[in-house]
Amino acid sequence: MHILITGAAGMIGRKLTTRLVEIGAPIGRPIDALTLIDIEAPQKPEKFGGKVVSAAADIGDPATATAAIGGRPDVIFHLAAIVSGEAELDFEKGTRVNLDGSRALLEAIRSAGDGYRPRLVFTSSIAVFGAPFPDAIGDEFFQTPLTSYGTQKAIVELLLADYSRRGFIDGVGIRLPTINVRPGRPNKAASGFFSSIIREPLNGQEAVLPVAADVRHWHASPRAAVGFLIHAAGLSSEQLGPRINLTMPGVCCTVAEQIAALRRIAGDKVAARIRRAPDPLVERIVAGWPRRFDPRRALALGFRAEASFDDIIRVHIEDELGGNIVV
Amino acid sequence: MHILITGAAGMIGRKLTTRLVEIGAPIGRPIDALTLIDIEAPQKPEKFGGKVVSAAADIGDPATATAAIGGRPDVIFHLAAIVSGEAELDFEKGTRVNLDGSRALLEAIRSAGDGYRPRLVFTSSIAVFGAPFPDAIGDEFFQTPLTSYGTQKAIVELLLADYSRRGFIDGVGIRLPTINVRPGRPNKAASGFFSSIIREPLNGQEAVLPVAADVRHWHASPRAAVGFLIHAAGLSSEQLGPRINLTMPGVCCTVAEQIAALRRIAGDKVAARIRRAPDPLVERIVAGWPRRFDPRRALALGFRAEASFDDIIRVHIEDELGGNIVV
Repeated sequence: MHILITGAAGMIGRKLTTRLVEIGAPIGRPIDALTLIDIEAPQKPEKFGGKVVSAAADIGDPATATAAIGGRPDVIFHLAAIVSGEAELDFEKGTRVNLDGSRALLEAIRSAGDGYRPRLVFTSSIAVFGAPFPDAIGDEFFQTPLTSYGTQKAIVELLLADYSRRGFIDGVGIRLPTINVRPGRPNKAASGFFSSIIREPLNGQEAVLPVAADVRHWHASPRAAVGFLIHAAGLSSEQLGPRINLTMPGVCCTVAEQIAALRRIAGDKVAARIRRAPDPLVERIVAGWPRRFDPRRALALGFRAEASFDDIIRVHIEDELGGNIVV
Repeated sequence: MHILITGAAGMIGRKLTTRLVEIGAPIGRPIDALTLIDIEAPQKPEKFGGKVVSAAADIGDPATATAAIGGRPDVIFHLAAIVSGEAELDFEKGTRVNLDGSRALLEAIRSAGDGYRPRLVFTSSIAVFGAPFPDAIGDEFFQTPLTSYGTQKAIVELLLADYSRRGFIDGVGIRLPTINVRPGRPNKAASGFFSSIIREPLNGQEAVLPVAADVRHWHASPRAAVGFLIHAAGLSSEQLGPRINLTMPGVCCTVAEQIAALRRIAGDKVAARIRRAPDPLVERIVAGWPRRFDPRRALALGFRAEASFDDIIRVHIEDELGGNIVV
């Protein structure tokens, strides 16, 4: 089996590559080739006996998609995207990569002309939804995004479904929760604090909380996100039916519950490293975000997130900190 | 006020042009200029004292949009589209006109660079919805179209909302019911029989009914559709809020109720001109269509359809038959 990953140098892309190589035969057949592309050439995985092509390529350039599918990969994980904040600041860049880049990939497959019809797993986002919301967002709630990023993701979902319906591709779109705990340095994303209030205290550093403790949100670990992607790759078209875009499960909790979980796992001293510093801009942005879902279809199809925020913290300690906490 | 109509030579476009000229000042200010475009040059309206430009132009060509907004129309009615059946048969043509043509219009406005921000009324369709449905489709039901036409309309709705949110345009999208009674000759559209079982008998001709009498659907007259468009043009952004795409009201009835209305208005002899001839293909297509909506937002915003199918037939007799029925 040949697998293509776009955005393979990103946080999820790297973890997905590592996990696929670990599993070896993630959906029945052994992987014998990997094509990894990103705006900078992704690292080749260690301990992989098959063929690897790693390439620096701009998915916004239509030639990229044509080249990327040249080897007719059986499964495509399309992760490449301009993130929410940047797509909002730079409308043209977000449109070029998130919308036109995704469309170029779909068109390259449709135009292959040799019966090529790969499984295409697209990472969408809960940003396809926009406030006001019901208490829990059901699988049939409409998409009224309040960002250009969410708009671009919602459009690609529609294209993915139509290209699948017409038999051009075999697509599945998964709407990822906010990924928590993101490893690495703090970034400027408005959602960054959800991770940093866990990550920094566990590293012995202070973290700033810009919103009230009763802010509620929808979380899953990077490990769960990788699990969603691999599970999606293995679902049959019959299981999916025509409604191929699915909201992923997650853990619904408030910031206070996140902090309580941190205290249970790492103690008072670690939890005391969070400092409340209200930021009206972040508060306003976060107020427009989804808080809770009722993702029955994804659960029925076997997608699984963590059962609690405690579990999300444990995954972070295991996967990123080698099991160690700085107390 | 300067008004641009794309698709102005179509059935709705012609009726809209006539009605705008009749009203003179449809949303407060008098119309002093009309720009009418379509793939064939639209007829210029009679009895209009202002300036009229009528042009044959392909909205799928990006130069068309730039030229069409050259005179900076205050209100744009964007009706131009490849219809459902053709967009399904010719994927590339439907995409080029319905998706890329609409996007070119949005981009031409965004790139104007002089603060130009017209009211843009976009005709969407209930084809943005796909079965299975609840008994009545609410305003927050999701868009899972089962045709490429519906997909293209749903995508333009998303772009319209994002371009409006960002202040590039002042958009409103209205999802038209099936328009009934369509004047003119029978056509090959799967929905054609909804009109022909009324239109042909009233003209003294036989009509064929390809589906069962219990088939339920959502209807509005051409006159109501023109009313929706003009009403949409006059709504303020404050009234609309961020969710600018609206399902229009209509009359929900079965084919049997359509026929009963025809009998009440035109008598048994006319109603007897309908011959049942089942067509499994049409039956299957129609089974995937919406049957009933609960369009609360549009009603609250003052959109009004007919109150009954009897009224829809009366509108047809008044507007198309000069009040006369062939008995």
